[in-house]
Amino acid sequence: MNETHRTDLRSWVESANQPGTPFPIQNLPFGVFGRRGVEDLPRVGVAIGDQILDVSEANGLGVFTGAALDAAYACEHPGLNPLMASDPEEVSALRAQISALLRDDGPMADRRPRLREVALIPMRDAELFLPADVGDYTDFYASIHHATNVGRMFRPDNPLLPNYKHVPIGYHGRASSLVIAGSPVIRPHGQTYDQKTATVSFGPCRMLDYECEVGAFVGPGNELGEPIPIGQAERHLFGICLVNDWSARDIQSWEYQPLGPFLAKSFATSVSPWVVTAEALEPFRIPAYKRPDEDPQPQPYLDSPVERERGGIALTLEVLLASAAMREQEIAPVRLSRASFRDMYWTLGQMIAHHTSNGCNLRPGDLLASGTVSGSEPDSRGCLLELTWRGREPLTLPTGETRNFLEDGDEVVLRGWCDTDGAAPIGLGDCSGVVLPALHPE
Amino acid sequence: MNETHRTDLRSWVESANQPGTPFPIQNLPFGVFGRRGVEDLPRVGVAIGDQILDVSEANGLGVFTGAALDAAYACEHPGLNPLMASDPEEVSALRAQISALLRDDGPMADRRPRLREVALIPMRDAELFLPADVGDYTDFYASIHHATNVGRMFRPDNPLLPNYKHVPIGYHGRASSLVIAGSPVIRPHGQTYDQKTATVSFGPCRMLDYECEVGAFVGPGNELGEPIPIGQAERHLFGICLVNDWSARDIQSWEYQPLGPFLAKSFATSVSPWVVTAEALEPFRIPAYKRPDEDPQPQPYLDSPVERERGGIALTLEVLLASAAMREQEIAPVRLSRASFRDMYWTLGQMIAHHTSNGCNLRPGDLLASGTVSGSEPDSRGCLLELTWRGREPLTLPTGETRNFLEDGDEVVLRGWCDTDGAAPIGLGDCSGVVLPALHPE
Repeated sequence: MNETHRTDLRSWVESANQPGTPFPIQNLPFGVFGRRGVEDLPRVGVAIGDQILDVSEANGLGVFTGAALDAAYACEHPGLNPLMASDPEEVSALRAQISALLRDDGPMADRRPRLREVALIPMRDAELFLPADVGDYTDFYASIHHATNVGRMFRPDNPLLPNYKHVPIGYHGRASSLVIAGSPVIRPHGQTYDQKTATVSFGPCRMLDYECEVGAFVGPGNELGEPIPIGQAERHLFGICLVNDWSARDIQSWEYQPLGPFLAKSFATSVSPWVVTAEALEPFRIPAYKRPDEDPQPQPYLDSPVERERGGIALTLEVLLASAAMREQEIAPVRLSRASFRDMYWTLGQMIAHHTSNGCNLRPGDLLASGTVSGSEPDSRGCLLELTWRGREPLTLPTGETRNFLEDGDEVVLRGWCDTDGAAPIGLGDCSGVVLPALHPE
Repeated sequence: MNETHRTDLRSWVESANQPGTPFPIQNLPFGVFGRRGVEDLPRVGVAIGDQILDVSEANGLGVFTGAALDAAYACEHPGLNPLMASDPEEVSALRAQISALLRDDGPMADRRPRLREVALIPMRDAELFLPADVGDYTDFYASIHHATNVGRMFRPDNPLLPNYKHVPIGYHGRASSLVIAGSPVIRPHGQTYDQKTATVSFGPCRMLDYECEVGAFVGPGNELGEPIPIGQAERHLFGICLVNDWSARDIQSWEYQPLGPFLAKSFATSVSPWVVTAEALEPFRIPAYKRPDEDPQPQPYLDSPVERERGGIALTLEVLLASAAMREQEIAPVRLSRASFRDMYWTLGQMIAHHTSNGCNLRPGDLLASGTVSGSEPDSRGCLLELTWRGREPLTLPTGETRNFLEDGDEVVLRGWCDTDGAAPIGLGDCSGVVLPALHPE
């Protein structure tokens, strides 16, 4: 195990040692932030407890050396793209030196007062931005439980399409409407079809949903025409975050044939601010989903012993909801579901290998999302479509309010953390968003 | 009519006065080029006959003034995005001053020798690049003839899906694999399903196709959450080009359910280099497709008197093919089809209004493609899937070779021009590409 994963590490940034923090010294995720009220370009930072280490300011103090220095210079940019494009060894060196710098028994203790002064910013004083300039955003559909549930609603006799167990199904998403977690989400307008009256109309979405997903940022890219073999896929994975793929189910069901979801998704997709590196995830790598014996084996280009052995991630995901009335009455958000990323039918490595198998080029900072993470149990379903079975089985909130789909004022919070025996738990942080009313009410 | 459209204009750049040139002085499309063998950033140019006017070099000679000057400065960038983001009035002013500058009876005749020396580059000495850094690429499906033909192959009883006449169907495409016309296209690998043997396999595509489409570059964008009303859509259209949406039909038919085309398209999409501005298209604007009386009228957000009156474009498109054997034997490319853009069921304005109707933001330089342009006649079908009816009715080439789908070595050339009474014809130029063998033959 890498030195940075040691469970006995403690930081002189005290908040990083608090049980339950998503950002202990074993995590060190990268993000992009600005100081509130300060006119400046966004900066690259590393989350540590409730603080952010400003990488460039720290570098200005001469604390990085060797390969880490190249990665630190790549952080002098208002987005993580250059860092993501860097050699993984350089990123690893930077992470190791940041770990040493922040350890309470680390070197350069004399620099700490100055680091606190110029390079540590309380998160509460920071505005967070999208971690990267996302060239292309791809959304997969890798949970067989989600795909089966959704399929069952539309095709009760044949819930799972014949390609599902062969092809990591995915589609191109909209990059321009990716927003940082915390951004409000305006209820979209759209065309819908009313089956009862056989009429088409245009108006505010009436079946607004969230989807709890894991996002993967691409590190080094590949050239057009040069597929990434499954055995090298992990080298192109910079790290992960949370993604809320807000979905307008009524718009989706009318528009999606035959070319897939379009406006039902492109009004907003929320991305959490902290990118947990592939290296930080190492202690949590577990075998890929164990396919039942009757399932087909993956095609050779999607299969490798390493992927089978450690393609999974011991990552738990929760969805919480607080209605406007709950927030007014100071009622804590209620948990709607809890699922495990270990239940995904396809791994992130398989998604990368498949995506590039036709020669398609990935670029540093591209975002791949997993698709809704749902488990086999009813309380592990990662969207309202599944949880309320298309609105037929409403949820009841602590206020007595019921929900088929999202109402204006609802706040949705996605949360994720990695936990396994013998490792210090780390978190992805929160990915939240409040639903605002449609702009032009009719 | 705008002064720049006058049919009697002639240029002192003689090649611009040759009948049949796509780039007479009435056109003046923008593009991005570099001088072959010169190490320099790509530059913005305007096509005139067989020459390119380097806008920044011309500006350096002090030939632009007023609002045109702002647009000329926006051209000091290795892509058209800043120009596309500019006020349409500024772009129009620049175009008018370029028109005057290049007219044989225009002002500043004394500058012509110096312009020739520093600012006019023969196209044959130039390398052309993608016109813009495309943030998002969206592909529509706006030809009802194409949609009906394709639907008929897969669903003979119900060729057109119920949403088609209500929704301008589209999907997100892959931006990273957009390539400039002339780039070779490597036959992709992919997963396919053999219905006869009920087996899945992975290998080189066996049903490689082209799709002849019109591309529209977005000018000024809109903010997330702020739809573009149909009445303002044209203001957001910078100009048009040709797009070849190369398609792997065997991969497509296996992967596309339920989320749409993915790897069947993302291996390469060719874009022609010259963007014909919305202003240059003005003389060719015609009424939108006349819907049969029994068809539903468009929803109000997709309908306007102006759109009905001039939403169409008098634009003819041709597809030509030359096999490797034909090129060896110096046989001219054979025309496979000719179609008119006036037959499209949805206009570019409707695509823009629909795309943003949910609040989705378009950004300057985003690319919208029309989908395959096919007419009602068999010889107006814009892809091989339709022309050979999924390979069942092969075409015969002048060499005696036959084609169900594209073979290695085939060169596909798309060509488009606008022609109407009382206007000087202008062209989009060519969008060509040669198919190269799959990289790792099996």
